[in-house]
Amino acid sequence: MAHPIDDRSLDQLFREGRSHGAWTDAPVTDDDLRAIYELTRLGPTSANSSPARFVWVRSEQGKARLRPHLSAVNADKVMKAPVTVIIGYDPGFARELPRLFPQAPGARDWFSDPQVAEITAFRNGTLQGGYLIMAARALGFDCGPMSGFDNAGVDREFFAGTGVKSNFICSIGRGDPSKLPPRAPRLGFEEAGRLA
Amino acid sequence: MAHPIDDRSLDQLFREGRSHGAWTDAPVTDDDLRAIYELTRLGPTSANSSPARFVWVRSEQGKARLRPHLSAVNADKVMKAPVTVIIGYDPGFARELPRLFPQAPGARDWFSDPQVAEITAFRNGTLQGGYLIMAARALGFDCGPMSGFDNAGVDREFFAGTGVKSNFICSIGRGDPSKLPPRAPRLGFEEAGRLA
Repeated sequence: MAHPIDDRSLDQLFREGRSHGAWTDAPVTDDDLRAIYELTRLGPTSANSSPARFVWVRSEQGKARLRPHLSAVNADKVMKAPVTVIIGYDPGFARELPRLFPQAPGARDWFSDPQVAEITAFRNGTLQGGYLIMAARALGFDCGPMSGFDNAGVDREFFAGTGVKSNFICSIGRGDPSKLPPRAPRLGFEEAGRLA
Repeated sequence: MAHPIDDRSLDQLFREGRSHGAWTDAPVTDDDLRAIYELTRLGPTSANSSPARFVWVRSEQGKARLRPHLSAVNADKVMKAPVTVIIGYDPGFARELPRLFPQAPGARDWFSDPQVAEITAFRNGTLQGGYLIMAARALGFDCGPMSGFDNAGVDREFFAGTGVKSNFICSIGRGDPSKLPPRAPRLGFEEAGRLA
């Protein structure tokens, strides 16, 4: 029977994890991005569908392509972040299921209804975005997730011809804790739910 | 600058974390559920919107109310699990923003468009479901997330009159590793994305 991980790790993942918008100059390397992805991809998805798709925007050219589709506040954050990953989702994920979910040879057909495929891809692609945030924090990085941008514009710029749709974006780096606002309150256990 | 958490914790969270469908008799207590929620609620959401709502189904009566809305395979798993949480999302989350996001007094109005409120609630409620899976694993529990049930039926049974909608469900307990199939393959870094 597994035990809780140590308190310092719980702090890093949850209790002291914060959404950052200001970054130190510490780089995020190719190996770092691969290490983050190696953990992210192991998180559970429906029928191992793994619908998330990632564009790791780190070059000046890449940032310049992303910038016009963001609000002014978020554009400034992204231009200064070491890397910002576009988390997208592929509603055509089922084409990979014969390989990803070999235990059910008919799994591809479970998602032949486009509405079912869309909601499955969005739900599970979002879960994978959550795993990415936790994986980056587990490896010692900070995250700055953002939504509220021009998704259609990002899709035209980065996913044209693929059917992939953008979901949210997330800067990754070493945050500057001196720039953080106080942590906002959260809902109590009884406010957010109940036993049944 | 933070360092990676230790390898044993990375194993527990990601590398050896698996979706379980068979459970030992070890109970999951009220205190356990509160500890899982205390970590879950700290994960980041847009404007601290915190739209996820949770029904922690542990009683025999609760399981009997959930059962008719599940597939036969999932119903059997849920009846035998120590607890199964219904992760829902509240499209009316913005009413809480004056308290949850006090730094932006106008934040409630950002979500006055019902379509924006719906997608924000679904995206961020799903992220919180991902944090819940990671929080439960961090505390030594195993998870068995499931979708593909009758969402409208679950909503009528558990969320009538609230506007809350069910998203997915997740059993929590101590899994029986002898019942696990081999881990399915994942997409490689280049298959799931690219640098830009």
